[in-house]
Amino acid sequence: MLTKLEQQKLFPLASKDNTNKDTVIRVKDVQFGKEPIVIAGPCAVECEEQIDTIASFLHKNSVPVLRGGAYKPRTSPYSFQGLHEKGLQMLSAAGKKYNLVTVSEAVDEHSLKQVAHYCDIIQIGARNMFNYELLKKVGKFSKPVLLKRGMSATISEFLTAAEYIIKSGNKDVILCERGIRTFENYTRNTLDLSAVAAIRELSHLPVIVDPSHGSGRRSLVTPLAKASLAVGGQGLMIEIHNEPSKALSDGFQSLDFSTFKNLLLELKT
Amino acid sequence: MLTKLEQQKLFPLASKDNTNKDTVIRVKDVQFGKEPIVIAGPCAVECEEQIDTIASFLHKNSVPVLRGGAYKPRTSPYSFQGLHEKGLQMLSAAGKKYNLVTVSEAVDEHSLKQVAHYCDIIQIGARNMFNYELLKKVGKFSKPVLLKRGMSATISEFLTAAEYIIKSGNKDVILCERGIRTFENYTRNTLDLSAVAAIRELSHLPVIVDPSHGSGRRSLVTPLAKASLAVGGQGLMIEIHNEPSKALSDGFQSLDFSTFKNLLLELKT
Amino acid sequence: MLTKLEQQKLFPLASKDNTNKDTVIRVKDVQFGKEPIVIAGPCAVECEEQIDTIASFLHKNSVPVLRGGAYKPRTSPYSFQGLHEKGLQMLSAAGKKYNLVTVSEAVDEHSLKQVAHYCDIIQIGARNMFNYELLKKVGKFSKPVLLKRGMSATISEFLTAAEYIIKSGNKDVILCERGIRTFENYTRNTLDLSAVAAIRELSHLPVIVDPSHGSGRRSLVTPLAKASLAVGGQGLMIEIHNEPSKALSDGFQSLDFSTFKNLLLELKT
Amino acid sequence: MLTKLEQQKLFPLASKDNTNKDTVIRVKDVQFGKEPIVIAGPCAVECEEQIDTIASFLHKNSVPVLRGGAYKPRTSPYSFQGLHEKGLQMLSAAGKKYNLVTVSEAVDEHSLKQVAHYCDIIQIGARNMFNYELLKKVGKFSKPVLLKRGMSATISEFLTAAEYIIKSGNKDVILCERGIRTFENYTRNTLDLSAVAAIRELSHLPVIVDPSHGSGRRSLVTPLAKASLAVGGQGLMIEIHNEPSKALSDGFQSLDFSTFKNLLLELKT
Repeated sequence: MLTKLEQQKLFPLASKDNTNKDTVIRVKDVQFGKEPIVIAGPCAVECEEQIDTIASFLHKNSVPVLRGGAYKPRTSPYSFQGLHEKGLQMLSAAGKKYNLVTVSEAVDEHSLKQVAHYCDIIQIGARNMFNYELLKKVGKFSKPVLLKRGMSATISEFLTAAEYIIKSGNKDVILCERGIRTFENYTRNTLDLSAVAAIRELSHLPVIVDPSHGSGRRSLVTPLAKASLAVGGQGLMIEIHNEPSKALSDGFQSLDFSTFKNLLLELKT
Repeated sequence: MLTKLEQQKLFPLASKDNTNKDTVIRVKDVQFGKEPIVIAGPCAVECEEQIDTIASFLHKNSVPVLRGGAYKPRTSPYSFQGLHEKGLQMLSAAGKKYNLVTVSEAVDEHSLKQVAHYCDIIQIGARNMFNYELLKKVGKFSKPVLLKRGMSATISEFLTAAEYIIKSGNKDVILCERGIRTFENYTRNTLDLSAVAAIRELSHLPVIVDPSHGSGRRSLVTPLAKASLAVGGQGLMIEIHNEPSKALSDGFQSLDFSTFKNLLLELKT
Repeated sequence: MLTKLEQQKLFPLASKDNTNKDTVIRVKDVQFGKEPIVIAGPCAVECEEQIDTIASFLHKNSVPVLRGGAYKPRTSPYSFQGLHEKGLQMLSAAGKKYNLVTVSEAVDEHSLKQVAHYCDIIQIGARNMFNYELLKKVGKFSKPVLLKRGMSATISEFLTAAEYIIKSGNKDVILCERGIRTFENYTRNTLDLSAVAAIRELSHLPVIVDPSHGSGRRSLVTPLAKASLAVGGQGLMIEIHNEPSKALSDGFQSLDFSTFKNLLLELKT
Repeated sequence: MLTKLEQQKLFPLASKDNTNKDTVIRVKDVQFGKEPIVIAGPCAVECEEQIDTIASFLHKNSVPVLRGGAYKPRTSPYSFQGLHEKGLQMLSAAGKKYNLVTVSEAVDEHSLKQVAHYCDIIQIGARNMFNYELLKKVGKFSKPVLLKRGMSATISEFLTAAEYIIKSGNKDVILCERGIRTFENYTRNTLDLSAVAAIRELSHLPVIVDPSHGSGRRSLVTPLAKASLAVGGQGLMIEIHNEPSKALSDGFQSLDFSTFKNLLLELKT
C-alpha cells in the first residue's frame, strides 16, 4: 500500500517528502505546476497546412502549448507511422510562427535527439514508460520531459519511472495520467483520476491529464477535462484536429475547433 | 462498443433514447437528478448514540440524506455483520428526528421488506448488482432504489441491471458509481468517472458517485468528490463517522466531521 | 499476499491447515477430490428431448454428472431465463433414467429449495459468489454445493465465500474456477489456472475447472481441459449440446457430441 | 473478437492463414516448435561461479538452453541492474563449456548488439513488447528472437508485436506467455494459458511459457509448467538458482536444483 518507507526507497527524488514545495517547471512563458496549462494539437503532424491551421487556432484562443506526433508508436506496423524529422520541422515552424511551446514524442535515441533539437518539451509515451533505457537517456537532456503513465503501470511504478529520469540528471518531469487498461470496453482506457489526487500527495512533480486517450471518445473529453482540473490536475492534453474525420490517426477521439472552444469556455465557469 | 441498436436491445427502459428528458426522482424534499445531492453517514449503524450524533451533525450542515448499513455484506463471515432490524430502527428514528431522508442496503428478500419499511430509499450494493433475483424483487417495491455498480460490471451491464428493476415495475432507480476492480492497488478500487459521463449520455437515470468506496483512502475523498460533480455526477455518497478510528467497519476511508465540513465548503467554491 | 495468519482469520474452516487430509465429497458413486470427475451438459435445459438426448450420450460415454440450468442469471432481462421447476423436473428425470448425478444452479431461496429437491448438487454461480445471504442459506442444506468463483473475486475472497457456506453448516463444498475478468477480450474470461494450483495448496476442498465459460470459445475448451487437469484440477465442467447452433444460450462455447468425445479421448492420453 | 479479416490486416506474416505449416526454429541442436524445449537459468548472471554451477547442472540434466539476464529492466533505478557485457561474457563462456544454447535480454540498441554477439537467442522482455523501435531493430538481426508478452498486451497486440519483427526482416520469432496484469494479487501476474491455445490457432510461430514470472511463486511453478505443456505450449522458461535465498533478483520465484529436478521428472510422467 506504499508506506512512507517504500516511497523513500522507490522514488526518493520524486517523493514529496524530500522537498517542502511543489515543483514548478518553466518553459518560455508557461509554468507547469502553477496555473492549469492546456496543451492541444493533433495526434500526428500530417502536413504544413494542417499544423499551421491548428497552431493559428490555438494562438487565437490563448492556448499556449502545441502538441503533434512525428514518431508514432502504432499498434500495427502497417499504420501511418508519422512524418519523422519533417514533421518535427513543421511543428517547430508552427510553434515559432505563433509563439507556442511545442511538445512531441520520442521513441528511441535517434528521435530523442531530434525532438530535443526541434521542440521545447520531450514526450515519453505510455508504451515506453517501462522502457528504462529510454528514461535514462532522456534524463541526460536538459529539456523538460512529459512522461505519460504506462497503461498497466501502478502509481508507484509511474513515480519510479520519473525517478529514473531525475536520477539520470533531468529533474524537470511533468507527469501525465492517460488512463489504464481494465475490463471496461466502452472507453478505450479507464481514466484514473484517483491517481492524480494520489500523485499530488505523493510527489512534488506537476501532473496533467489526457482525457482524449483516457476515454477514446470525443463526447467524454469535455466532462473529463473539467473533472481532471477539479481533482487537482495541473493541466490538460487534448487532441484536436481541423478535420477530425480526415485525421490519419485517432480521429474518433479528436475534438473539432468548435467543440474545443466550448471546452475552453466550460473550463472557465 | 455499445451501438444504439445494442442499447435498445439491452436496456430500452433505462436508455436515454426512449425519453426526451432526464428523470428526476423525488424523495420528500430531495430531488435526485436536479441539484447535486449529498448523502452521508457511517458505513454501519453501530448504536443509537452514534447515529444520532451523525444525523444531528448532518442536519446542522444541511446535508439532506443519511446513510447507514444494517445488513452488511462483509467479505469475512467473522466480521461485524450489522445490527439488522435494530439498526434500521435506529436509522429511521434518527432520520425522523432530524428530518433526513434515509437509505440502507438490502441483501435478500427478508432485509428488503425491512429496509422498505423503515427507510426512504433501498440500496442494492455492489456485491449484489449481478444478483438478478434481488433486482427483480426490489423492482416490486414502490420506494426508490439506489443501485451501486458491481466491481466488475461494465457500464452496459450496470445499465442492464437497472433495466431489470425498471422492467419489474420500479422506475425510480438512482445509479451509483463506486469504483471498479483493476490492477492498481494504491486505491481500494479505481473510481471510473468516465462511466459517469457515459451514463449521462446513455441513460435518463440520475447517477451519483461514492468516492469513499471508490478510493478507500480518506485523503482522496475530497478531491474525488469535486471531480465527481465536475464530470456530471448528480450527487455524492460519503462515509463519515464521529470517531473514524473506532468505526466497526471501513474506518480508514471514513471522514471525521471536520474534514467533511471542509469537503462541503470545497464543493461550494 | 495472504499469510498463514490471514488464512486462519479469513477462512479457518476452508484452510488446509486445519486438517491433515484433502476432503473427498461423495455423491452417489461419484467422489470429488479423488479421481478427476467430468461434469457435462447444456447451459440450459430446453426441453425433454434435448436433455434426454444429452443424458443418454453422457451415459454411453461414462460421464457421471449431468449439468443443466433451469434458473439462468442472464445479463439481459429480455433473454431466455430458463424453464424453472419444469426444467428441474426434466433434468431429474433424465438423471434417474441414465443413472447420472445431477447439478443445477440456484439463484435465491425459492430456487434453492427446488434445486435441493430435484438435484444431487446445488450450484451457486459466479454472479452470486458475493451474495453472502445465498451462501448462508445454501449452508443450511445437506446437499453438496458447487461454488463458482466470482468473475472479480480474488482467490482469498473465493475461499472466504466457501467459508460462509461451511460456517453455516454445510461442509461439502466443491470449488470451481471459471475465469476472471481482465482486459483481454479475445476470450470471454481469463481462465486462471494458477488459482487452481494455489487452492490445492491453501485449502482441503476439491476444486474443478469450467473451461467453457473460462474461455467462451469452443476451440479452446479441449486444450484448456487438459491443462486444467495437469495443473491439479480435480474435475471439469463442460458445456455440451446436441445442436450447439440452436442452443438457447451460450451455444458458441458449447461442444457438439463429436468434439466432446474427442476431448474425453484426449484426457485419457 | 479478431476476425480472419482483422488478423490478415494486423499480422499477416505472423498469421497461420498464410502458411500451411507451423514454423520450426532451429538453434544449434534445439528445435523450437517441434519437441517441448526447456530453458532454465537465473534471473540475472551474478558471477562466473554462479553461472558455471547452474550451466553444469543443466548440462547434467539434459536441459538444452541456458538463460541469464545481463541487462535487467528493474522497476527501481536503485536495484541491481545486471553485469552488462561482463555478464554476457560469463553466460557465453558457460554456454560454450557445457554445450548449451544461450539466451539473454536486450533493452536498447547497445545491448542488442552485445546480446547478438554473445548469445544464440535475443530476448525482448515484457516491458519492451510495446517498444516498437526496439522490435524494428531486433528485426534487422539474424539471430532468433524470444519475444515476451507485455503485461497489458492483448493476444492480438502480442502477435502484432511479432509482426513488427518479422516485417523488419527476422522471421525467427519465439513467443513467450508470461502472465498478464489483473486484480488478482496472490500471484504476481495471472498466467494466461488460454492465450497459448489461442496463439496455436492464430499463428504459425512457436509459443513457450514462463510460469516463474507468470506466478511469482515458487510453489506454483511445477503445476503451471505441466499445464503449460498440456495446453499446447512448445516449451518452458524456468528461473532456477543454486541458492535462491541469496539471488540478487527474483529469488522468491526461483527454483532450487532439487525442486527443478522434480519438475523435470513430473514433466515426463
